[in-house]
Amino acid sequence: MPTDDTIAAIATPAGSGGIGIIRISGPEAENILLRLFQPSHPLVIFQPRRLYHGDLVCPETGRALDEVLITLMKGPHSFSGEDTLEIFCHGGILILESVLSSVLKAGARLAEPGEFTRRAFLHDRIDLTQAEAIGDMISARTSRGLETAVSQLKGKLKGKIDVLREKLIDILARLETEIDFSEDVASQSSSEVSSQLQSLSEDLAALLRSYEQGKIDRHGASVVIAGKPNTGKSSLLNVLLEEERAIVTPIPGTTRDFIEEAVNIRGMSIRLTDTAGIHPTEDIIEQKGIQKVWEKLADADGVILLFDGSRPLTDEDRGILTRLADCRVLPVINKTDLDHRLEEEEISDALQGTTPIWISAKFGEGIPVLKEEISRLVMERAGIQDGEIVISSLRQKMALERTLQFVDQTLAGLREGLSPEFAALDIRDALEALGEIGGETATEQILDRIFTTFCIGK
Amino acid sequence: MPTDDTIAAIATPAGSGGIGIIRISGPEAENILLRLFQPSHPLVIFQPRRLYHGDLVCPETGRALDEVLITLMKGPHSFSGEDTLEIFCHGGILILESVLSSVLKAGARLAEPGEFTRRAFLHDRIDLTQAEAIGDMISARTSRGLETAVSQLKGKLKGKIDVLREKLIDILARLETEIDFSEDVASQSSSEVSSQLQSLSEDLAALLRSYEQGKIDRHGASVVIAGKPNTGKSSLLNVLLEEERAIVTPIPGTTRDFIEEAVNIRGMSIRLTDTAGIHPTEDIIEQKGIQKVWEKLADADGVILLFDGSRPLTDEDRGILTRLADCRVLPVINKTDLDHRLEEEEISDALQGTTPIWISAKFGEGIPVLKEEISRLVMERAGIQDGEIVISSLRQKMALERTLQFVDQTLAGLREGLSPEFAALDIRDALEALGEIGGETATEQILDRIFTTFCIGK
Repeated sequence: MPTDDTIAAIATPAGSGGIGIIRISGPEAENILLRLFQPSHPLVIFQPRRLYHGDLVCPETGRALDEVLITLMKGPHSFSGEDTLEIFCHGGILILESVLSSVLKAGARLAEPGEFTRRAFLHDRIDLTQAEAIGDMISARTSRGLETAVSQLKGKLKGKIDVLREKLIDILARLETEIDFSEDVASQSSSEVSSQLQSLSEDLAALLRSYEQGKIDRHGASVVIAGKPNTGKSSLLNVLLEEERAIVTPIPGTTRDFIEEAVNIRGMSIRLTDTAGIHPTEDIIEQKGIQKVWEKLADADGVILLFDGSRPLTDEDRGILTRLADCRVLPVINKTDLDHRLEEEEISDALQGTTPIWISAKFGEGIPVLKEEISRLVMERAGIQDGEIVISSLRQKMALERTLQFVDQTLAGLREGLSPEFAALDIRDALEALGEIGGETATEQILDRIFTTFCIGK
Repeated sequence: MPTDDTIAAIATPAGSGGIGIIRISGPEAENILLRLFQPSHPLVIFQPRRLYHGDLVCPETGRALDEVLITLMKGPHSFSGEDTLEIFCHGGILILESVLSSVLKAGARLAEPGEFTRRAFLHDRIDLTQAEAIGDMISARTSRGLETAVSQLKGKLKGKIDVLREKLIDILARLETEIDFSEDVASQSSSEVSSQLQSLSEDLAALLRSYEQGKIDRHGASVVIAGKPNTGKSSLLNVLLEEERAIVTPIPGTTRDFIEEAVNIRGMSIRLTDTAGIHPTEDIIEQKGIQKVWEKLADADGVILLFDGSRPLTDEDRGILTRLADCRVLPVINKTDLDHRLEEEEISDALQGTTPIWISAKFGEGIPVLKEEISRLVMERAGIQDGEIVISSLRQKMALERTLQFVDQTLAGLREGLSPEFAALDIRDALEALGEIGGETATEQILDRIFTTFCIGK
């Protein structure tokens, strides 16, 4: 993909709207402006970052394609770091296509997905974490995910990585000094290096742990509703979704397949799964279904374990309780609208003292409290703390893991008397791995993988 | 609907894209800017029509919702004629909703559909024909429709209506002079008024005729493919659409229901209809179907009458030819890939000399020529002439018809010796009707009807 030509694309979402934008970036931007734009008031020069009103004219027919506003931004003071022209058109599909087509004829080529952002990266306007943040912002589905992405765009993660790199460079410098000096100095320095490496290893591990939060921020958490048949799992799903998604009947075993839907609870996206009731059965098909429920439960970020409050605890309930005792379980007792015949103590005893929440899925009673508890459960799981710097992509996580691996390897080596020459080589590898996160050492393949997930026009 | 408060809406199409715009119009625009925007570089005042970079901050949490560009346009030098703030955000749905929500909390209310354009009309920035043109531009599906709308936005129709109004006012002035003067003067003037009215009536009628073109520009023309069974009507539809839309088999009568699809031919949107083969039948259901074909043919802007070139003309063909002789028929002979057994003279004789076009729907032969002829047929039907001023909405047509009615009524009255007092009343009614087109005399109901068809944010 050439990087010195001029690219153009429709930058607004596809469809009809009030305003649509064509974005052009590259050395030909100003020439394209001069070729296609007739200002309403004659003027000598286009000042950067000012809006001008006029006609966008098809150079072949001389016909006005649209009345537009335009603005020119001169590189490097633009998003991409290049001369950039933005044309604000009326937001009709045909208008945008006609204008884009004239722009392409006037000397631009159609941009690849994410190519404007890629150029911003290539011109050092942003690093890779910030580029990823832009993609995350656009696709954010929860306010927490958006917050994380905005803070990443503002360079929070970049700053953190920069600090870690400084530490690595400092360690490398010390190791290289050691190589040249006497054993005495070296031995003293080596213990200092070891303690620096130890602290760095802890920093890296802490940042790695934030991936769990980043993942939940971005993709949401999974919460499974489980319990024996006929406790009201599907009714609970419906009341949490605020729609009649799952079929509800008084017949035990109405739900057979998983039903999975996303719901937004306190700014977090949560994938709720309604499952078949767990119970002992001779039916082989049913056994397979229930086996799948157990697998689902093992992967879940949290489990809502539902009981029927109108009946005493059964051995089925007890079996499920025992098996789930070590999971992140929120015990919930349904059917407060009926007579209470369930003692909650046995449940809380089995779950290290967790007090069950009483609800009526039928009448919506207790649902606000339940939502509160679901969000608490998920935030605990993710170790979510407000304002913390998190890593948000698998790519960042893998690079960080490799960095940590090299750091720990150096540390172990030094303890076993590894010479500083070899330790320095490991630290260089750690720097290389860390550099991938911001993009200093990222390959074309990594860039391709990141930017092809972007929309065209970004 | 209040017109002195501040309105806000997302102005870009719904969905994710590179850039999304929030538009704010009204007296609070600048205050909202000051409340929510933190510029990257400190500055004393916001110059109008300049772009500034900074953070859009949620006033409650102090958190940056997005990095944005903003521009302020001071009334009356803005689209709506009011102070207008535009916020260019990253184009994520959640970002736009968060920013809009902060804007609404900061003192704006959500705009109704078309309310920005309605304010532009109320502040005399545009007249109603131009407001309608904006709606037409956004929804335009063909390049001709877009051209008509752009020329209407540029005031072409407005200018034409202004000229007609001037003429009416001139006539009114003459009539009012007559009222005060002697019979001698009046009689001479009256004949001048009559000839002025006659010329005006012709102008109005000519403009009314352009409605047919405007309608085809906007909604496209309807062209029906007809013929006896098994001439290849469905194959022809498919080849014109460039997709396998209709089921094609060698069995006569494969097509039972109408198949209707839009296709763009030389910049015109054409609705093509494939119909069941016309043939004598005893089957009552088939008879009903064929009856519907005849109805469809009567409404069409053009008919492609298809013959099978590999068989001699039959009485069925002759029957259809006779019945369609007065329609806008394009005779087409299919299956040039087989041996010719059809004499085209009989066809052209029956259709006032129109020469049939030979094609092979199967191999695409003759299709470019056919497309050319279809577009010619439709343009003739609409009386389309490039660059002509056309009226484009039923509303304009109805107001123009009433204007013409009053003018003709005055003309007839004057010929029968109507006194100038009464003629003047008629002319006032004509002026009132004409004024509806531009909006000078339009009621709230008319405005509501126009603007509720707009999208929010326009």
